Amino acid sequence: MLQIWALEGIPEVVPHTNLFEVILDAAGSTLRDGDILVVTSKIVSKAEGRIVAADDREDAITAETVRVVATRTSPTGHTTRIVENKLGIVSAAAGVDASNTPDGTVLLLPVDPDESALALAARLRQRLRIRVGVIISDTLGRAWRDGQTDSAIGAAGVEVFEDMRGQTDAEGRPLVVTLPCVADELAAAADLVKGKASRLPVAVVRGRADLVGPLDLPGARAIVRDPERDMFWRGADEAYADGFAAGAASVESVAE
Amino acid sequence: MLQIWALEGIPEVVPHTNLFEVILDAAGSTLRDGDILVVTSKIVSKAEGRIVAADDREDAITAETVRVVATRTSPTGHTTRIVENKLGIVSAAAGVDASNTPDGTVLLLPVDPDESALALAARLRQRLRIRVGVIISDTLGRAWRDGQTDSAIGAAGVEVFEDMRGQTDAEGRPLVVTLPCVADELAAAADLVKGKASRLPVAVVRGRADLVGPLDLPGARAIVRDPERDMFWRGADEAYADGFAAGAASVESVAE
Repeated sequence: MLQIWALEGIPEVVPHTNLFEVILDAAGSTLRDGDILVVTSKIVSKAEGRIVAADDREDAITAETVRVVATRTSPTGHTTRIVENKLGIVSAAAGVDASNTPDGTVLLLPVDPDESALALAARLRQRLRIRVGVIISDTLGRAWRDGQTDSAIGAAGVEVFEDMRGQTDAEGRPLVVTLPCVADELAAAADLVKGKASRLPVAVVRGRADLVGPLDLPGARAIVRDPERDMFWRGADEAYADGFAAGAASVESVAE
Repeated sequence: MLQIWALEGIPEVVPHTNLFEVILDAAGSTLRDGDILVVTSKIVSKAEGRIVAADDREDAITAETVRVVATRTSPTGHTTRIVENKLGIVSAAAGVDASNTPDGTVLLLPVDPDESALALAARLRQRLRIRVGVIISDTLGRAWRDGQTDSAIGAAGVEVFEDMRGQTDAEGRPLVVTLPCVADELAAAADLVKGKASRLPVAVVRGRADLVGPLDLPGARAIVRDPERDMFWRGADEAYADGFAAGAASVESVAE
């Protein structure tokens, strides 16, 4: 049995809020060994002071961008930028977020969500003397499917993949390909109790203590696929345009 | 509080197994109004007899394919085909699956998972006189992130999107962009209790009765993004090659 609930009583988080103390106050006495905390990246960003003026939103997206993956302009003139950010994460607008932020401001993603998760997990373990895992989640769109799901952008003390390689299926044959991204599944599950409109930014998942392990387990950075191994490392229109230019140039160079 | 558990006692499913009776036997007396059943597509396929000889796997993938989105051949010579199937779902190998199948066979996806979900939900509601939702899940890879998560490929009597449009954030501003795909989040959450190696193909999610509604709610087909609205409707290498050929031809036609 898996149980998931949102923590009540998390106050408004502002720059320099001590997230550890806030979460400890809200959850401390109820947490048990093997519990996994799923923390919305938004409050981590706020606590870390990752807030910029909304007027600078487009500049902020550009500053957060390592590589533009695809862009598309809607009939109304709004341009969506799908970009790779400094963390390797591919998302719309580099995760720069205007909802649930103080008026006139936007939020950037935490600088290093794996480090933020590690700091939180380490302090909770030290204080409570139990093993807890921490996931930092963000709401991400995806290719081919409409809408968004919450995914893990930071993790500490919890497996991000459930490695089935070497295990066998019910027929006794090896499970070779399967690599369930349990960190993303935990983030998605937690979103079902957190909601976007309410101020419930932290959820507890109880019932998968087997996924909780040492603090030096790989973080969510391990989920990011290297663009060289990614068949969708660039938008179709952008790749077509690159190819068109190269094709035209190749003929011109032969003709010369 | 969300509670999720796998149903014990689901027997081996074979062609013509009555899934409704099997699930009713395993869950009937414990189900409550507002529960959501998440059923692994594999047992739906088996019950529907969607089994072909493993020797025909490559032909089966071709037959299930409406459009090849991208292909890549590994250094060892194994070719991965990312394709759009008849349901519009983009996935590796058109969902043709060789794990947990009888020896020498592979499974195709259900012909119409929304219809399969509807049949199950309608019969359960009729028999138990409670409103239950049904999701049919499959394990899908994704762009940009390694590993797989379970997603919804069929749904009945349950919202696939939680429509936040028109709602406001904690600051009172409208939530304009967000469209959480709760059906995919429910499928992902259920995978955390089902496991790939064990024979636990059905999970119950309790605690989001607000998502359960009439049987004529849109199915999981509504999650599929139209390729025309998809920036990743074609693999980057394929789009580049198309562009290259078009670019070369454009110059040649000018030169003639």
